[in-house]
Amino acid sequence: MPAISQRGQACPPSPIRKLVPFSDEAKKRGIKVFHLNIGQPDIETPANVLDKIRNTDLKVVEYSHSAGTLSYRKKLVEYYSRVGVTVSPDEMIVTTGGSEGILFAMITCLNPGEEIIIPEPFYANYNGFAVAAGIVVRPIESFIDNGFALPPISAFEKAITPKTKAIMICNPNNPTGYLYSKEELELLRDIVKKHDLYLFSDEVYREFCYDGKKHFSVMNLEGIEQNVVLLDSISKRYSACGVRIGVMISKNKAVIATALKFAQARLSPPTFGQIAGEEAVNTPESYLKGVLEEYVRRRDIVVESINRMEGCFCPNPGGAFYAVARLPIDDCDIFCQWLLENFSYQGQTVMLAPATGFYATPGQGKNEVRISYVLKVDDLKKAMKCLEEGLKVYPGRTL
Amino acid sequence: MPAISQRGQACPPSPIRKLVPFSDEAKKRGIKVFHLNIGQPDIETPANVLDKIRNTDLKVVEYSHSAGTLSYRKKLVEYYSRVGVTVSPDEMIVTTGGSEGILFAMITCLNPGEEIIIPEPFYANYNGFAVAAGIVVRPIESFIDNGFALPPISAFEKAITPKTKAIMICNPNNPTGYLYSKEELELLRDIVKKHDLYLFSDEVYREFCYDGKKHFSVMNLEGIEQNVVLLDSISKRYSACGVRIGVMISKNKAVIATALKFAQARLSPPTFGQIAGEEAVNTPESYLKGVLEEYVRRRDIVVESINRMEGCFCPNPGGAFYAVARLPIDDCDIFCQWLLENFSYQGQTVMLAPATGFYATPGQGKNEVRISYVLKVDDLKKAMKCLEEGLKVYPGRTL
Repeated sequence: MPAISQRGQACPPSPIRKLVPFSDEAKKRGIKVFHLNIGQPDIETPANVLDKIRNTDLKVVEYSHSAGTLSYRKKLVEYYSRVGVTVSPDEMIVTTGGSEGILFAMITCLNPGEEIIIPEPFYANYNGFAVAAGIVVRPIESFIDNGFALPPISAFEKAITPKTKAIMICNPNNPTGYLYSKEELELLRDIVKKHDLYLFSDEVYREFCYDGKKHFSVMNLEGIEQNVVLLDSISKRYSACGVRIGVMISKNKAVIATALKFAQARLSPPTFGQIAGEEAVNTPESYLKGVLEEYVRRRDIVVESINRMEGCFCPNPGGAFYAVARLPIDDCDIFCQWLLENFSYQGQTVMLAPATGFYATPGQGKNEVRISYVLKVDDLKKAMKCLEEGLKVYPGRTL
Repeated sequence: MPAISQRGQACPPSPIRKLVPFSDEAKKRGIKVFHLNIGQPDIETPANVLDKIRNTDLKVVEYSHSAGTLSYRKKLVEYYSRVGVTVSPDEMIVTTGGSEGILFAMITCLNPGEEIIIPEPFYANYNGFAVAAGIVVRPIESFIDNGFALPPISAFEKAITPKTKAIMICNPNNPTGYLYSKEELELLRDIVKKHDLYLFSDEVYREFCYDGKKHFSVMNLEGIEQNVVLLDSISKRYSACGVRIGVMISKNKAVIATALKFAQARLSPPTFGQIAGEEAVNTPESYLKGVLEEYVRRRDIVVESINRMEGCFCPNPGGAFYAVARLPIDDCDIFCQWLLENFSYQGQTVMLAPATGFYATPGQGKNEVRISYVLKVDDLKKAMKCLEEGLKVYPGRTL
């Protein structure tokens, strides 16, 4: 039997999925599992988007342009203008989910063996694409005690080697929920400019900013227009994860022209997803406003609940719908599995994502978990209660 | 400005798309262009499939399982059983088009720098994925004079090096239309077994076999079950290219488990596409029968027309909806561009794909073109007339 590739062996399993078998077992035993492990919102997709799909009158579901239909790209120009970003249809490639944009950015800008700096903890799937592309992730640590703010510039300087080609951020951040300020981004701009690096910015949670904070896009950082690659997706914005539509944007014509060659190899992004995406831009403002209010309620429950639990700490996230909490536990992987395998409270338990999967540095995040607040307030309260009761009796409790 | 990656520079442009600007120009000048350059059928998607999409009652368009929904995979088991292939739902990963399956197979089985042998001419986009994955395509020549039959085993033996990890075929073949016989595939099996290589088989045109010939799947080659990776797509079968749904199948558990990690990184294949795919298996047999008859009519027109033209030769393809023809021309890239830029016949011209793009060996295929017979019989006749008249007056004619 021929061997699996080394990169195939090196690709880490998804930290949000590896506990699924234990969750399935718990359900089989009749235990209700609250899923706070995955960023799959329960929010309804906007009705206008679903209606648009239902009313399509296509006769042949054809390939589209490899960069996405022109009509959708024009509509995206309208969307970005609304959020203060000026782009043209030829500065974007519609991608199959935000995921594909990450891969395109990596293979377009980095050679195998070259390095990308990412503050950790970071969205675990960046690892899978880096492994696929043969590039090396250089993590630099961010800290729970200051809410996972941007690491000091000195930490970036220290991590930069002759092989460094890019810095990647996610803003607002998955998994931490941290929202980078304009000032932090300007510090980042300076270092990107000084070393002539690419700056990849994953801004899929742009609309989810709380407490009156405003999102600042890297597209508006002056002086590094040719270095910036924006990665985006409609999955979270419109609770439409399954349509698999994202976009990769850059003012750098060589980046777009090169990514387009890879895009042509895979022919086109999904047709129905593009129809959904185009209509999504027409979604009434009240939809996002309602969603935002709902997430704030949920965030408040998670943060307040956890900070009331003995020995626990959860910074207050400024955006996205995730929080990373520090718990008095020996090992989050064991704890999360234990919650599914050995624990229940009133016939219920909770599924969390062990934070270790979001760190590239081995051993980091062992007493942290990521919580996606994607459930309704009532369920979220019950899930927090399960966590609280679980922590009281967990054998590996450290306090 | 930071540099584009070397692989980005190395990625060849799509041979079926690079002439699009000239085609657009021709249309602007009022010339009708018959598109025989691209494998986008004009056949209607089955009505039951489109109806199914219109009648979805989803409230939230969620991620599916990363390997595809279980209900779709079960339905695929039914489909494969019908075509004589026995598989189970856990031996498959639903992919975003056949394209993604090609990438998954490559990164799962080959390390950067390792080699894959592919008979040329071959589907040009294999190049894009090989470049993305950092692997090396080793072409071995097949010949128009015997209709592009499988090259002799000695040619494979000669091409095998310590870095060779896989052989890839497309059957029936794009771009040649050649249908490999069971006997040819058994020769291939022997060499795969002897050197313990992977065998990737792209069988997306399985249903399009002509003149009573039967398709034989590599899944039924005995003794190399652990070596075979089947790549498939519903794009051509049901004229549903835009849904972006394919599948990667292997009896090798390590291959599927590893590909699943990459699949998890990109979360899931498109939801609406999977709904379409599941329903597509219910498509009445009369649909495919009608499509097949239509393609035979078209093939006959193309093959007969070209073989009547002076100095031209077109083998009779046993499958798919492509043919590669040898023309009395100096350079197919120049000729195809000239047809769009400098030629018209009764206000019409034809767009073909230069065959050079389907060869990895520089200089090969210079007097060949690929013709996709994806237009209605009347248009196809007019397109053939354009080709005939064009050849008469083309300045680079060699005979």
